[in-house]
Amino acid sequence: MIESDKYSIVKVPADDLRKMCGKALYRSGVREDILNPVAEGLVWTNLRGIDSHGVCLLPHYIRAVKGGRLNPDPEMHFEQTGAATGIFNADHTFGHAAGKKAMEHAIQLAAYSGMGSVSVSNSSHCGALSWFAHEAAKHDMIGLAFTNATARLKTPGSVRAFFGNNPICLVAPMQDEDPFCFDAATSKISFNAVKAAAAAGVEIKPGMVTDVRGMETTDPNLAALLMPIGSYKGFGLSMMVDILCSLLSGMPNGNRVSNMYGDPLNKKRLLGQFYCAIRIDFFCDPRTFKSALQDSAHCVRAEPALENCDVFAMVPGDPEKKAWQERSTSGVPVPDYILEAINNS
Amino acid sequence: MIESDKYSIVKVPADDLRKMCGKALYRSGVREDILNPVAEGLVWTNLRGIDSHGVCLLPHYIRAVKGGRLNPDPEMHFEQTGAATGIFNADHTFGHAAGKKAMEHAIQLAAYSGMGSVSVSNSSHCGALSWFAHEAAKHDMIGLAFTNATARLKTPGSVRAFFGNNPICLVAPMQDEDPFCFDAATSKISFNAVKAAAAAGVEIKPGMVTDVRGMETTDPNLAALLMPIGSYKGFGLSMMVDILCSLLSGMPNGNRVSNMYGDPLNKKRLLGQFYCAIRIDFFCDPRTFKSALQDSAHCVRAEPALENCDVFAMVPGDPEKKAWQERSTSGVPVPDYILEAINNS
Repeated sequence: MIESDKYSIVKVPADDLRKMCGKALYRSGVREDILNPVAEGLVWTNLRGIDSHGVCLLPHYIRAVKGGRLNPDPEMHFEQTGAATGIFNADHTFGHAAGKKAMEHAIQLAAYSGMGSVSVSNSSHCGALSWFAHEAAKHDMIGLAFTNATARLKTPGSVRAFFGNNPICLVAPMQDEDPFCFDAATSKISFNAVKAAAAAGVEIKPGMVTDVRGMETTDPNLAALLMPIGSYKGFGLSMMVDILCSLLSGMPNGNRVSNMYGDPLNKKRLLGQFYCAIRIDFFCDPRTFKSALQDSAHCVRAEPALENCDVFAMVPGDPEKKAWQERSTSGVPVPDYILEAINNS
Repeated sequence: MIESDKYSIVKVPADDLRKMCGKALYRSGVREDILNPVAEGLVWTNLRGIDSHGVCLLPHYIRAVKGGRLNPDPEMHFEQTGAATGIFNADHTFGHAAGKKAMEHAIQLAAYSGMGSVSVSNSSHCGALSWFAHEAAKHDMIGLAFTNATARLKTPGSVRAFFGNNPICLVAPMQDEDPFCFDAATSKISFNAVKAAAAAGVEIKPGMVTDVRGMETTDPNLAALLMPIGSYKGFGLSMMVDILCSLLSGMPNGNRVSNMYGDPLNKKRLLGQFYCAIRIDFFCDPRTFKSALQDSAHCVRAEPALENCDVFAMVPGDPEKKAWQERSTSGVPVPDYILEAINNS
């Protein structure tokens, strides 16, 4: 949570925050089986410290319901197409509700076939992918999740963006702690983090973003394009995710992916996601797997640190586990203007 | 191919080069069904311009056969464990021979179940992953390939490496040209490319590698660690691949992965790989998919270029397709000392 003199931060117990979100969604006419995963997923994400993908999105989501973009009463539909595959039509509802169901289907497919994949069409913004992939780990499976996103990733060699910073997520169970979780966009910074910096009135580090003309800037208000990790490698990873999410689901791809904030609120997002579950015991003994992953994490954390440096080697998900521990006892820090917007919507 | 005054470069027709490699392997006692994929895979990789993973590796491979590391007469074994999963024991033979077979099994699983994954144990260096993943595209499938590698990726926050620059590869069929191919390590540069720079006596760009103490250098002879793309993101991608390749196959992981060059040549590599095939028509019409991917590639290539810049926006695999076109007619450029080593081994 970025501190700022533009707003004050209120610490809200997770349960209260979840209820607050649920009520706001209910008032907007969202069906109960749809609003529950949305409220749960958003607060879960805040608990893990990823405030850019937490409850700060809810006021926007509710405007999208009122505008007609998000379907509060969808007829979602799953069709199994093979022993290990299926397609899921989200009927334009919340990405959280669609992803939860789609991952459940992927887990079911994996339970029978060893692995399962579900392609989601007619979806919308789904928040943090890690929430869905964690479901698989509960069943001693590896969970993978991918989504397409608005084109914001600066194309190497060009001044524009063609792909979104399409994130990649893998979650795997560990022996003595919460699952391993890698969940990262292919850009150096997320656009929601840029928006949060703009709201807080703080600058962005150099080399992270460019303005609309493709020129580097540190001003979050001028930021339009995000720089890919590893230049053409991050760009290639994004195109790879675009293939899995947009092309397999038949949704618009590349720079035809709709705009979360710029498009009118009656325009459907038509996003695509791809969820996959891998049953560990079809490859090896899950106890051995979890103990080896635990050992791997211990080793990484014990790697010798740089001299005169207070940064230590970390395992993906470590900052999120630390945030969870703090916030599940002391509450989720939320800017007052977000709480107000949730309660008034 | 890096030019240098230390050696001269000979252009060899691909067929001749393949035969030359095959004969060298045959003289070393490698079985014909094993040597064929090795010779084919290496020359295929040279044809695509990836000289660091082409025939320059053969003299080392042959030393590894003679040393007892690589098994020239293996009993490879596949066990199907589910409708979509299987495990493959490579019996310490060449990664090229193991990967070819393992991907064939993944394709067979996918043919029945929509997708299939095969975990490979007791494997060795497999060259370029793209060669295996291309097999899937021949069947209108998406191919995915992953391998673990010697720990060389500098861990953010530490002065050492814990994971290899474990590469990620996705290949998908296109309408009017050879398949889309993303194949990239999680480091900014490959170690074989560092070795090629050392052999050619040229410097490496700044920010790419560090020496053994974790300090940045541009001298390829001092290079020991490779910088990850996107710092902790590239590191996290490597740990993700380590989970899929090392932990699922039960092979040594992280910094316990053996060393291609540093270890004695009688020591087995014990590498792990993970291959996956996804049948496109279980998700959508493959013609629509291939035409959408073709269109996506056309759009990327037509993106407006940076002013005063001769670099254009490219699709992953574009440089490799250009190299293929050139080299399949004018021959594969190979340094004379490599040809000599192949012919004398």
